[in-house]
Amino acid sequence: MAATVTSMLNAIKDIGREPASGGYYRPIWSDAELTLREWFTGEAQARGLDVHTDQNGIMWAWAGTPGPNALVTGSHLDSVPGGGNFDGPLGVASALAAYDVMKERGVDFTAPGARPFVIAVFPEEEGSRFGQACLGSKLINGTADIAATMNLKDLDGITFAEAAKANGYDPTRFGRDEEMIGLMGSFIELHVEQGRGLIDLGQPVALAESIIASGRWTMRVEGEGNHAGATPLSLRRDPMVAAASVVRAVRDAAAATDGGVATVGRLLAHPGGVNVIPSHVDMTLDCRHPEKDVVDGIIEAIRAAGEAAAAEEGCTFTLEGSGKPTLYFDSDLTSRMQAVLPEAPVLPSGAGHDAGILAKDLPTGMLFVRNPSGISHSPEEYAEDADADFGAIALADVLTAELTVK
Amino acid sequence: MAATVTSMLNAIKDIGREPASGGYYRPIWSDAELTLREWFTGEAQARGLDVHTDQNGIMWAWAGTPGPNALVTGSHLDSVPGGGNFDGPLGVASALAAYDVMKERGVDFTAPGARPFVIAVFPEEEGSRFGQACLGSKLINGTADIAATMNLKDLDGITFAEAAKANGYDPTRFGRDEEMIGLMGSFIELHVEQGRGLIDLGQPVALAESIIASGRWTMRVEGEGNHAGATPLSLRRDPMVAAASVVRAVRDAAAATDGGVATVGRLLAHPGGVNVIPSHVDMTLDCRHPEKDVVDGIIEAIRAAGEAAAAEEGCTFTLEGSGKPTLYFDSDLTSRMQAVLPEAPVLPSGAGHDAGILAKDLPTGMLFVRNPSGISHSPEEYAEDADADFGAIALADVLTAELTVK
Repeated sequence: MAATVTSMLNAIKDIGREPASGGYYRPIWSDAELTLREWFTGEAQARGLDVHTDQNGIMWAWAGTPGPNALVTGSHLDSVPGGGNFDGPLGVASALAAYDVMKERGVDFTAPGARPFVIAVFPEEEGSRFGQACLGSKLINGTADIAATMNLKDLDGITFAEAAKANGYDPTRFGRDEEMIGLMGSFIELHVEQGRGLIDLGQPVALAESIIASGRWTMRVEGEGNHAGATPLSLRRDPMVAAASVVRAVRDAAAATDGGVATVGRLLAHPGGVNVIPSHVDMTLDCRHPEKDVVDGIIEAIRAAGEAAAAEEGCTFTLEGSGKPTLYFDSDLTSRMQAVLPEAPVLPSGAGHDAGILAKDLPTGMLFVRNPSGISHSPEEYAEDADADFGAIALADVLTAELTVK
Repeated sequence: MAATVTSMLNAIKDIGREPASGGYYRPIWSDAELTLREWFTGEAQARGLDVHTDQNGIMWAWAGTPGPNALVTGSHLDSVPGGGNFDGPLGVASALAAYDVMKERGVDFTAPGARPFVIAVFPEEEGSRFGQACLGSKLINGTADIAATMNLKDLDGITFAEAAKANGYDPTRFGRDEEMIGLMGSFIELHVEQGRGLIDLGQPVALAESIIASGRWTMRVEGEGNHAGATPLSLRRDPMVAAASVVRAVRDAAAATDGGVATVGRLLAHPGGVNVIPSHVDMTLDCRHPEKDVVDGIIEAIRAAGEAAAAEEGCTFTLEGSGKPTLYFDSDLTSRMQAVLPEAPVLPSGAGHDAGILAKDLPTGMLFVRNPSGISHSPEEYAEDADADFGAIALADVLTAELTVK
């Protein structure tokens, strides 16, 4: 390969990295994310690809003339707070490397009748700035409610519309893009595995069968702010105490199922003073299981336990949000990918991906590359050099076969 | 009175107020706190007092010539996050009003042989920016470790030394000020009550007997960051789950005592992503009881429970900090104040105050004014107009008597 996946990832390994924790933070339109966009533009242009960013903030790097039934590959460049350098960038670097492999093999992307080919980078896949995961793909295919999206606020209170405008976008032009959706024939995304499936199976690469049912909720316990020193326990309505019971109930409700997971990743006490009983506590909730009924059951168990725990402390509990069912990737596309990669196991994904969102409009499929740590959304995630290169060649093999699909 | 306490507090009721919650936030050297310093300077200068700010950031407004055995009154202007307009400012406004009352009564502060009189404003009493309560009084009397203080960081990572320098202070000049300590003869602080003692007793004003034993600790649970969707419960080392058990243990340990209180006012999960199992969770702990042995017992119970809860989740638990014993105010001064205010009950304080810190170097005493909500460190704290004026007159009565103490 002209450039190995690892050498490309090494070129961006200091961008958005917090020296203290070693974790990355690359939210949409941060300095780090904008630098990664420049890096991608440079890599694509060096290969002669024609790069542009559309009205939804998605980057497209075309090989030859854009046209219908385009074969799309790519991933995302943003990260969760404290994330690693592989979740997202591995798929983008592998797309570039796979293009190199195909070029070296003599694939002519500009030949008459050639299937159009494009590498895509989807923004805010993690939802780490505005709270909405896969926002780029949800915007382009109309899944995201536009008015609600424009009013999404980051932790500094800046709305999506304000941030978009500050970055040169027209807030009135976000939303379903029929022309671009019409050009996309199919989408194949490569991603570092976010679990231990490939470790256990001793394989470097897998195909995705599904994205399991999941959802995001917000929870709030309202109590009464008061002085931490001067308020006897009997007079307290301390939302932190009730919130602690809620966190335990989240674990217990998931543990009562076979394979369900539920997580409180963020808890904010307001006002948050050392010597102040909080007035209210906000928590996030992430819950997943292969069957949506099980997710719904976990949520209702948390709601009941949360209301009881809050009542016991003289507080109130609210839980808002919704889940979505398990998504199965296109079986025809996955079967063709299996024919190319017969050794690759087919695994469900506990994590969501843009390929899952776009499945509403076009056939999509995924490749996973082994992560020896089994750890994800952490600086400990990684892929061995050999596995990363194996993944890029596997992607090139799959894409080469797909280029013949009319 | 020339200006009622209430009219003075009304003049500052919009400074540092968050419109959404109605709560105030006035940390040291914030725009709000700097505006309050200007307000105090204006009020003091309008009365002909000579105002200056010392090397530790304490403001002094002298009536006549500074000199030894000065009678000092005053309080603080900073607030906790989400606090009210009375905790601190009531004491400052009452000091100004008491001066007016004494002037109207014909007290001549500049007469030959008159006891020097000064109103003081102590900064960062709440410790809400740099985490160290009563920092101004701890600096001037040398209680605060200077090197450690200069390195204290706010939530934005700005050190005390950096913030001080940006506000025109010389970081090398903070610390015990023998000259000013030498001038202070005694200190009487008026404060809004932070509890229900005066409500229950049906009295507008109390004297302080003591500040009960207390301390601040930090607690950390270390686990393993990972993906919230792709990590089975059996492979998790989720510090949030263990932290929830710690919060419950904090409540249980305090509830097992007679009158002890313990509070987790802030909990921060790192990195704090919705779809990320945190790598570690930091919590604050505030604990108080009239007997330090009981505080120590609560802390050790929390430590044991925290270590057990962390171990159960494959995490580790650390608890750092220290407590201080109950402080009894100067009995001679309090007896003289009781002689002036025979109806006033003498109550312990669950909250700390600059008068407690300065008790190491000089006789100090306190007056509390009834708070009909019984709620403190909240926008719900307040004092009735009549009680506030009663308090200012009671302070004037006490100060007038103390002016004769040589």
